[in-house]
Amino acid sequence: MSMLVEFSVVPVGKGVSISPQIAEVLRIVVASGVSYKANPMGTVMEGDWDAVMSVIKKCHDVAMINAERALTTITIDDRKGKEERIEKKLESVEQKLGMKLKK
Amino acid sequence: MSMLVEFSVVPVGKGVSISPQIAEVLRIVVASGVSYKANPMGTVMEGDWDAVMSVIKKCHDVAMINAERALTTITIDDRKGKEERIEKKLESVEQKLGMKLKK
Amino acid sequence: MSMLVEFSVVPVGKGVSISPQIAEVLRIVVASGVSYKANPMGTVMEGDWDAVMSVIKKCHDVAMINAERALTTITIDDRKGKEERIEKKLESVEQKLGMKLKK
Amino acid sequence: MSMLVEFSVVPVGKGVSISPQIAEVLRIVVASGVSYKANPMGTVMEGDWDAVMSVIKKCHDVAMINAERALTTITIDDRKGKEERIEKKLESVEQKLGMKLKK
Repeated sequence: MSMLVEFSVVPVGKGVSISPQIAEVLRIVVASGVSYKANPMGTVMEGDWDAVMSVIKKCHDVAMINAERALTTITIDDRKGKEERIEKKLESVEQKLGMKLKK
Repeated sequence: MSMLVEFSVVPVGKGVSISPQIAEVLRIVVASGVSYKANPMGTVMEGDWDAVMSVIKKCHDVAMINAERALTTITIDDRKGKEERIEKKLESVEQKLGMKLKK
Repeated sequence: MSMLVEFSVVPVGKGVSISPQIAEVLRIVVASGVSYKANPMGTVMEGDWDAVMSVIKKCHDVAMINAERALTTITIDDRKGKEERIEKKLESVEQKLGMKLKK
Repeated sequence: MSMLVEFSVVPVGKGVSISPQIAEVLRIVVASGVSYKANPMGTVMEGDWDAVMSVIKKCHDVAMINAERALTTITIDDRKGKEERIEKKLESVEQKLGMKLKK
């Protein structure tokens, strides 16, 4: 069983440019070995609850080392009996559309 | 250290009315003993990461017993050196406004 | 027809304490006359798309006057043939639970 | 001035598989001519408030034609003096990481 999860971590009060902090977050995601796809607004991962949540906790904790405050948002789309949805979910939409989407 | 967390769990494909499932979720929240406030769009809790996330996992798991698919959204506002923000955050806003807000 | 909508506006890079900005947002919500309920993580409103979105745009614009960057999140729960859900949605859950919830 | 916006529309009570509805949403996004990138959890667009929100309203309205209920979530990251962030935001993170990310 695996879940699809998008998350983002935003440090508050550390200035307007937060790309160094987002780089730290993505370094943790890549090092975790969990399946992921980055997008301009967050990172999508696929895995079971404990695997995915332990990565997000590490990312949130890293943001809180250097910031007084952080906002972390997590959206979970959990569906029984489906695997590799990080690839297949959009492929299924592209098939219905009869075209490739920008990613 | 405590975090403020809002979450909601929506079973997908179980029909349009989901108040029985939301009742199950709130039964778990109340039984957990974690500080909470319910609103028409979700439930706000205050506590440390492990306490709050274990409640949300239970709520998500209950939804997945009876549904093929569930969407769970979690928003975390974590701030160092502040406690009882579930009460004080809005009180601070009301002081600045010089009026009581509808809740 | 009316929708239930929760939103929050967070200025980024304006320091850790943002309650003055949240007060500005709630001043706009109250002045709009739209049905609302404030909670520690956001504000729930009920109304049609144009009414609700024009309030949220004003709130977002006010945040952007004084900040270089702002994050605004909006969650819409739209359901046909239901009114006054800002009150009735939780009442329906309380009936199923057989208890009053903290709000 | 342009904003970065991620959104998703989920019809509730229309069964577990919603890829036909997501295909309808993406057909509207593509036809709008607004800059976009699709990901497994939502669609990111870049444009001004009115352009982007009118696309999202059309997508929400299409979902409500065929469903009794729909959940639409919108996250806005608005930043002054920056353009083409739909490409540049992740490129800036990749530069800091010294590696290409999966997208």
